[in-house]
This record gives sequence, structure tokens and C-alpha cells, in this order.
Amino acid sequence: MPRLDPYFKQVDSLKDTFIQRLREAVAIPSISSEDERRPDVVKMGHWLADQIKALGGTVELRELGKQPQHEHLDLPPCLLARYGDDPKKRTVLLYGHYDVQPAQKSDGWNTDPFTLTIDEKDRMFGRGSTDDKGPVLGWLNAIEAHQKAGIELPVNLIMCFEGMEENGSEGLDDTIRAEAKKFFKDADVVCISDNYWLGTEKPCLTYGVRGCNYYSVEVSGPGADLHSGVYGGMTHEPMTDLIRIMNSFVDPDGKILIKGIDDLVAPLTEDEAALYPPISFTMSDLHEGLGSETSIYDNKEDSLKHKMRYPSLSLHGIEGAFYTPGAKTVIPAKVIGKFSVRTVPNMEIDDVTALVQKHVDAEFAKLKSKNKMKFNVVHCGKWWVEDPSHPNYTAAAKAVERVFGVQPDMTREGGSIPVTLTFQEELGKNVLLLPMGSSTDGAHSINEKLDKRNYIEGTKLLGAYLHYVAEELKL
Amino acid sequence: MPRLDPYFKQVDSLKDTFIQRLREAVAIPSISSEDERRPDVVKMGHWLADQIKALGGTVELRELGKQPQHEHLDLPPCLLARYGDDPKKRTVLLYGHYDVQPAQKSDGWNTDPFTLTIDEKDRMFGRGSTDDKGPVLGWLNAIEAHQKAGIELPVNLIMCFEGMEENGSEGLDDTIRAEAKKFFKDADVVCISDNYWLGTEKPCLTYGVRGCNYYSVEVSGPGADLHSGVYGGMTHEPMTDLIRIMNSFVDPDGKILIKGIDDLVAPLTEDEAALYPPISFTMSDLHEGLGSETSIYDNKEDSLKHKMRYPSLSLHGIEGAFYTPGAKTVIPAKVIGKFSVRTVPNMEIDDVTALVQKHVDAEFAKLKSKNKMKFNVVHCGKWWVEDPSHPNYTAAAKAVERVFGVQPDMTREGGSIPVTLTFQEELGKNVLLLPMGSSTDGAHSINEKLDKRNYIEGTKLLGAYLHYVAEELKL
Repeated sequence: MPRLDPYFKQVDSLKDTFIQRLREAVAIPSISSEDERRPDVVKMGHWLADQIKALGGTVELRELGKQPQHEHLDLPPCLLARYGDDPKKRTVLLYGHYDVQPAQKSDGWNTDPFTLTIDEKDRMFGRGSTDDKGPVLGWLNAIEAHQKAGIELPVNLIMCFEGMEENGSEGLDDTIRAEAKKFFKDADVVCISDNYWLGTEKPCLTYGVRGCNYYSVEVSGPGADLHSGVYGGMTHEPMTDLIRIMNSFVDPDGKILIKGIDDLVAPLTEDEAALYPPISFTMSDLHEGLGSETSIYDNKEDSLKHKMRYPSLSLHGIEGAFYTPGAKTVIPAKVIGKFSVRTVPNMEIDDVTALVQKHVDAEFAKLKSKNKMKFNVVHCGKWWVEDPSHPNYTAAAKAVERVFGVQPDMTREGGSIPVTLTFQEELGKNVLLLPMGSSTDGAHSINEKLDKRNYIEGTKLLGAYLHYVAEELKL
Repeated sequence: MPRLDPYFKQVDSLKDTFIQRLREAVAIPSISSEDERRPDVVKMGHWLADQIKALGGTVELRELGKQPQHEHLDLPPCLLARYGDDPKKRTVLLYGHYDVQPAQKSDGWNTDPFTLTIDEKDRMFGRGSTDDKGPVLGWLNAIEAHQKAGIELPVNLIMCFEGMEENGSEGLDDTIRAEAKKFFKDADVVCISDNYWLGTEKPCLTYGVRGCNYYSVEVSGPGADLHSGVYGGMTHEPMTDLIRIMNSFVDPDGKILIKGIDDLVAPLTEDEAALYPPISFTMSDLHEGLGSETSIYDNKEDSLKHKMRYPSLSLHGIEGAFYTPGAKTVIPAKVIGKFSVRTVPNMEIDDVTALVQKHVDAEFAKLKSKNKMKFNVVHCGKWWVEDPSHPNYTAAAKAVERVFGVQPDMTREGGSIPVTLTFQEELGKNVLLLPMGSSTDGAHSINEKLDKRNYIEGTKLLGAYLHYVAEELKL
């Protein structure tokens, strides 16, 4: 068992330094999706590079060229760094991002989003506090605490911190592909701290995410929107046809009605089923998250399985129809229904698309309508699943137990985190999601926060993980 | 047969005067739905009053008080006028409106909307040219041509010209109710020139309009919009439930699926069926109007019956769902589906509402969803139908034959014109819709126009109608 107590003590005594580091980072409004904030994103990249250099790391700020479709903007640099280069040690590749979601006080924040503000419950409010500046700085804090405690890091670190995560990660996949056999070639495992615990008390390790196939169905007929008084009853109405098609996808209990989809889903193994009962999650947690008691299942296990390892289909909305408050007697001329399928092993993107398209074609044919129908694939991203018994995971589980005194929940995310799949596919290495923040942090929302406990104990966790991974993967 | 040729000749020789009158009226931008144009609406009312006074009529500009929900605005006056007061003559009540729809050159007009512009095809472009300044001035032109031809008007006229028709006719119903037994008490029949021919060549008389019951169904569940990745599969989704309910109302061929609705529809009589074949209307006219060939029926008669004398149900849209271009992986928390039923005899408003509500309740119950559903009545207006064999109609038909040399089409409008019903109910008198403009005039659209022929021959028609109505209703 690694000797970690001096490190843990050092983290505790550097607490104020670490919070100050986060305060400085939050103060830079590195919003990647707002043109006028692009210089702040770049500034943030340089600030982060300076921090790593000050700790003795080597850093390259890799320029990625112009932003596609926004050629007046340079992409912010991708930060590629190394700390340690000992061939006798294992190498861990860390990914994170230094850009943030938009935020304005007027959105409903209680405090200035770019001034880290700590309340009486030790919640640290600020944009980027939990997504993803806190976790990224957690790695730097771990290095600093090791140095000040006089303990050598047991692994080499390669860092990849991007500045476009909240804006489609433009340029990242190309960088990973280009550097897989170069800058990243020594990596033995990958660790990403950019998601959240399932609740607020118990850490988790995340070994999978669902994919997302997003589709639209366009039905058009009349040359322009019509008055329903003048033409209602005389013409095929695109809305009637579209609603009929959208009605055929899923039943109110969430069962997908598209033939063949179920057959693609990997059967639940006993080992896998055993992962659900220990997860720290209750139906009240779910109802709190929903803000209602509209859960389909009445038990934790079924609920979690349907979030994590079964597909779902959601109807998002209709473009082209009447959507404002009030009443308008319109027959919309062209309407576009939007829906998406959350995918899981072994649903291959193209297999799913083929089944959906076949279904849509068949449903439209049934209508015998004179309107025109067009099926579109909007975007697709594949699911990702790791083997949670890999040493990368057992190391992280031991670190959680050491720092928090509990076995971590083994979870899969319902939403997608595309970079996990890219690292897995391009590097061929095990990828671990090791979150720092909790479910109530409000990433992407107003009043984003990171609890002081999550930041400080999380810093201990990241450091401890490096020791356990060195041990589990001993050369 | 009335001696009308001297009158017709006089109309022809006053053509330029009449066009100048319309030019002056179009130049006043009397847009009732724009606060800052309200003074122009009032100005237009005064201009019209002065015109009537100059012809020897007596006029009151009835003030209607503040505009409900817009208390900073005075309603424009309702113009109440008389021309002639001979107890030995019948009295015809004329209704029209002097306000117009909004218009800006930048909306796509080819010419300034408030400058009457005549092109080489004798089309007179300008906002209000056909809706409804041209027809209102038609009555004044008819008076002037009678005076100049030295022919006495065979009837007394009562005029009711409002300035809020394009903005909900605020204040009009109260005025009609208040004056039914006073200012309007002598009226024997009512004539309204404020709709359009079915095509471009043949005049029509309109003896009915459909009503409109507008409803919404609100389905809500989660406390806020949810991420479909995080919650998809775990919760009942309001969109899924709403789409299922909306899917149950109507089939792609326009058949209403709500039980009991069909039973309310008055059976088609032989007399009524005989009105359809002579109507000048072709499937090409319909396809031109639709801008597509998406008509449900392949023949004129069925198409017209489903516009004029059968109900229809249209799905207008959904409030609260995703509606912009692009992709958003949202589970909307609260969605409101909007739909309306066009009603015909003998569908009473409350009977229809009861059937629709019962249907919606039953469909929602089937879903066994934990979401909440609320059914709302947004607004309802009843259908109106007159007896087309009434002397008011036979008079108008003879006038059409005299001026245009053809039997008019006997039509019903698919959309609603609520004032017809108010006059019918409050005065208990026969109401006739006698349009001046044609189907291509583009009322409410850009490049609104009135053909010179429709204006001048229409003026002849309105005058001739007064002679025939005097004859048909001889005291």
C-alpha cells in the first residue's frame, strides 16, 4: 500500500494556495463559444502553461489553425505538456479542458460568475469551478503537494488540455490522431476528470457512456404556410403526417418501437447486473434530479440500467410549426421533427440508422399522403465502454477507498463524452473517467460550483490514483 | 328591371375620381395593430366621415373608450352614418372597415404600400386597396354616381365602418348590441363587402362561414428541461405523451377521429349539393392556391364541400419543444400542443368542446403516464350560415347577372368572419357577403392589390344591388 499520508497532509496545508489557484483560473472568462471571449481562452491557455512550467513541466501550446466555418477566429491552442520522463515509470495521459460555458450575472447567477465566491456551506461558486478548471488544477495541485512533501511522483504524466471542449472540441480529434504515435506514444493508460458523481456523497468511476444518433424527418407539401380556415380539409397537412411518424417511434413507457433495435442491444451479463445494486443512488435522488416523480421504473436498478446500458429515444421538437404562446390558425407548409436515439453496445451507428430509416419510410408509406418526406441524419456519435476490471480501474477504486473510505460506484453516463472513444480508439489504451465534482454542481447551468471538500479530497484522490496505478501496472 | 344604364355610364365617367378617392385613402397608413399608427387610424376615420358628409350623409364618430389590455390607447372611433331617411324605402345596413394590416416596403413589397400604384395590367397596388378601403369607397362611389346621374337611391343606407377589424374588432360587438334597437333598428337587411371571389373571373355571393374552436393540450412532468442523455429512458417524457394525443385527432386524409363529431354535422341536402357543381373553380385553381398538388380529393365538388360545409381539424404546432434549426438533445419539461376544429352546422361550440375534451381525457388515460395533462379552450367562434334563397341574396344575384352577365357562385368561406354572426344574431336580419375583390388580391400579404375592373364594375354592382334589393323587398 503506497505511503500517502504525508502527501495528504501537504494537500490539507496547501488548501488556501489551491483555492487561490482556482480563483485565478475562474477569473479568466475563457468562454470558447463567444467570439469576443476568444482572447480570454488563449489567455487561459497561457496562464495554465505558466503554472505547469512553474512546477517544472515542459509545455507546448499547439496552434490548431483557423476555426472551421469561423475563419476569422484562431482556434485556442491545445496544451500538450509532460511532467517526468523516467523510462522506469509508467506514463499516465491526463485529459481536461480549460475553456468554459457562457455565463452572465443576468442569466440568474447569485454572484459574479467570474469571481470565485465561497458560501457558508463551503461551496465555491464560479463558472468553470467544476467544469473543468477545478479538476484540471487538481492535477497541478497534486504535483505541487508531492513536491512540497518531498515525495516523488510514481508515474510520468502527459497532459492534453484543450480550449474548445464547450464548442465541439474543434481540432482535438485531429491532434489526438496526429500525436497518438508521437507525443502520446508512451501513455500506458488515460485518465479524464471531467464528469460527476452520481450523487453528492459517494465517488464513482465511470466506465462507459451512451452514444447518440440524432435524426430529423422533414415533411413538406404546400408552397407556403396556409390559413387553416381557407384550406383545412382540402389538403394533406404536413403536421398531421409528421405527428403520425413521430408517434410511431416510442411508447410512453420509453419502449422503442423501431423493429430490430432491441436485437442490437448486448444482453445483460450476470457480472454486469451485479454492478448496479451497490450503486449509491435512490429513487429520491432521481426524483430530485427530475424535479418530479415521473420516473418510468419504481426501483433504482431498472432506472439506472435504462440510463446507462439500454437505449432510449427522445422526441425533441418540431421546426417550422407554430411554437409561440397564443393561437395561430396556420397549416405549416414544412415541418421538421427532431429526435435522437441514445445508443449502447452493440448498436453500431450505421445499423441503427438503417433500421430507423427503414421504419420511417414504412410509416410514411402507410399514410398514403401526397406530401413529401425526407429523412436526415443530423449527427451521430458512438457509445464507449471500458472493461472496469482493468488495472486502471482497480487502481482508481483503491484510491477512492483510501481517500473516502468507500468503494466507488461503478457507473456509465447516459450522455456522451466523445473524447473517451477517440483516446480508446487512437491510442488503444484503457480510458478511465475519474470525476471530482458531484451531481449538484450545475455544470452548464447558473451558479456552477465545486464543493471545497470535492476539490481538496479530489486533489488527494487524483494524487493517490497515480500511486495505485503505478503499483497495479508495476513494470 | 331597374333602369341602371345611366348610373353605370356615370360610374365609368367618374372612374378617375374614384381611383383618386382610393389613392387618398390608401395614403393614410391606418394600421390598427401598431400603437404608433393609431393617430393615422383616427385620421382615416375622420377622412371617411368628411367624404360621407360631403355626399350629404350624416355621420357620428362613436368613441369606444380605451383599448382593453392596452389602456394607454384610445380605440379608433366606429363610424355610424345615415344616407337617406325615407320611411317609404327599405333600409340597408352596410358594414366595412377603414383600418388595414401592417405593411412595410421592406417586407417585400415591390412598391411603397401606402402609395397607390397602378401597373400595366390595371392592378392597383396598395395596403387596404382590397381589404377593405376599396369596397367601403365603392359604396360612396355608388352614392356619388347616383347623384351625378340624377337618379335617386332606391333605399336608405345605414353605415357601420369600424377601425379595429384587423385587431380583433375591439368594441364592435358592444356597439352592435347597443345600437341593434336604436341606430340600426330600421335595417331590413345587412350587406358586407369584405371578402373575395373564389377565383378571378366570376363574382360570388357568400352565405356562410365556418366557425373555429381552438384548443391546446399541455403535458408537463419534469421540473425543468432535461438532458436526454442523462435522463432519457428513466422518465416519462411530455413530448412522447403529447405526440400520442395529437396523433389521435385526425388521419392523414383529414378525417376527424374524435368520436361523435361526425354526428353533429348537418346532412347534405339535395338543394345544397346542387350549389356546388356550378361553382367556377377547378382543381388547378386549388393547386395554385396550395402551391402544390397535395389536395386530398381529386374533384372540385368534394374539395369545396370540405372547405365550406364539412369540419376540419388542423395541428398547428407545439409550444415549449425545441423549434429552431440545428440539434438540441433536450427533453422538454412542458409542451403545449395547439390544434383547432373548423366547425359547421350544426356543431354547437360547447358540444364540440365536450367531445374533444372527453377524447383527450380518454387518450391521456390510455398512456398510463405519470405526467400531468391539462386541456384548454383557447378561443371559440361559431359558424354562420344564411338562407341563400332570401330576397337579399336573389337581389344580389340579379345585380351580379346585370353587371357581369353571369350567375354568381354561391359560396361559403372556410375561415371565420365573426361580425356576420353578430349582425345576424343581434339584428335578426339577413346578412349577405357581397365581395368586390378577387382571390389573387393578397389581402394581409405583401403587394396587396385591387384590379381596376373589380373596383369599377364592383362599384356598379354595389349600386345595382341596392336597386334590386329595393325591388325584391318592395314595401
